[in-house]
Amino acid sequence: MNQFEEKTIKSETVFNGRIIDVQVDDVMLPNGKTSKREIVKHPGAVAIIPVSKNNKIIFVKQYRKPLEKVLVEIPAGKLEEGESPEITALRELEEETGFTTKNMNYVSSFYTSPGFADEIIYLYETNSLEKLTELKELDEDEFVELIELSIDEAEKLIATQEIHDIKTIYAILYLKSKGMK
Amino acid sequence: MNQFEEKTIKSETVFNGRIIDVQVDDVMLPNGKTSKREIVKHPGAVAIIPVSKNNKIIFVKQYRKPLEKVLVEIPAGKLEEGESPEITALRELEEETGFTTKNMNYVSSFYTSPGFADEIIYLYETNSLEKLTELKELDEDEFVELIELSIDEAEKLIATQEIHDIKTIYAILYLKSKGMK
Repeated sequence: MNQFEEKTIKSETVFNGRIIDVQVDDVMLPNGKTSKREIVKHPGAVAIIPVSKNNKIIFVKQYRKPLEKVLVEIPAGKLEEGESPEITALRELEEETGFTTKNMNYVSSFYTSPGFADEIIYLYETNSLEKLTELKELDEDEFVELIELSIDEAEKLIATQEIHDIKTIYAILYLKSKGMK
Repeated sequence: MNQFEEKTIKSETVFNGRIIDVQVDDVMLPNGKTSKREIVKHPGAVAIIPVSKNNKIIFVKQYRKPLEKVLVEIPAGKLEEGESPEITALRELEEETGFTTKNMNYVSSFYTSPGFADEIIYLYETNSLEKLTELKELDEDEFVELIELSIDEAEKLIATQEIHDIKTIYAILYLKSKGMK
């Protein structure tokens, strides 16, 4: 135990969804007082940075209902129960882009919203893409369009906020920091 | 309207919390079929990268109940209703670090989890810190410890996953990309 720990007194699930659950925990604070914590439970996710042979990043354009707008993002998807992140990353790459790879590198993992959610993203990269001869099906409620951009072009979309999510903004800065032009 | 838009047929709030609300939307997909979207509504947040006169970044160490562990992060906090992000950033800087500034720069904004939440973070930076003579009070359920680290030291904490949230990982890479050592 550490000096900051918040001990759970009671935990109540207030919403059981298809993707997220929400719970409210009563906690004992370090000073002995109590408080409530609202927590979104998420299965975790993967994202992958696909770099093509002609040195472009492959993004997916998709409607994001929480924001009521279309964003351009690196391919990503939720972890299935019992599935390793690397397998999920390969599956999402294949389904969303029509490419596959025999060679992906793990970049890092990170929490997206540690204040209210336990979502973690495992990030991968690959620059050895092969076109699938047979396309995989997307989830039935998923509609995406592909867009290949150079680093410069991607940075322009950050400026216009068509790219506006942190995993994608980070991925672009990450590639730049490794010397990609 | 665009080709990807998901039209809301029905929207039901399933949880009204102190910080987040959760709604389930029935949507009409681009192919005419229907689906459900689980959406976390969040007031939005700010984060600030404070760089001290001796070229160290000031982080806060705090317990994150959703992860049941302590993380080291850049100072951050939720937007209050009607408050501009810059004012919130200054307030969080003062409350969490005991420093103030007359000069902060806006870095960028980003969505943290566009698949299930509308949280946006406005990111600022400052390198003109002044120690407050009178300390501000933290929220009554907030307990933080300060930690000043060089870029190198911060990168070691990324490796050990004591720094493990994307806004902080991004902030460190951002400073490095600007030449900070």
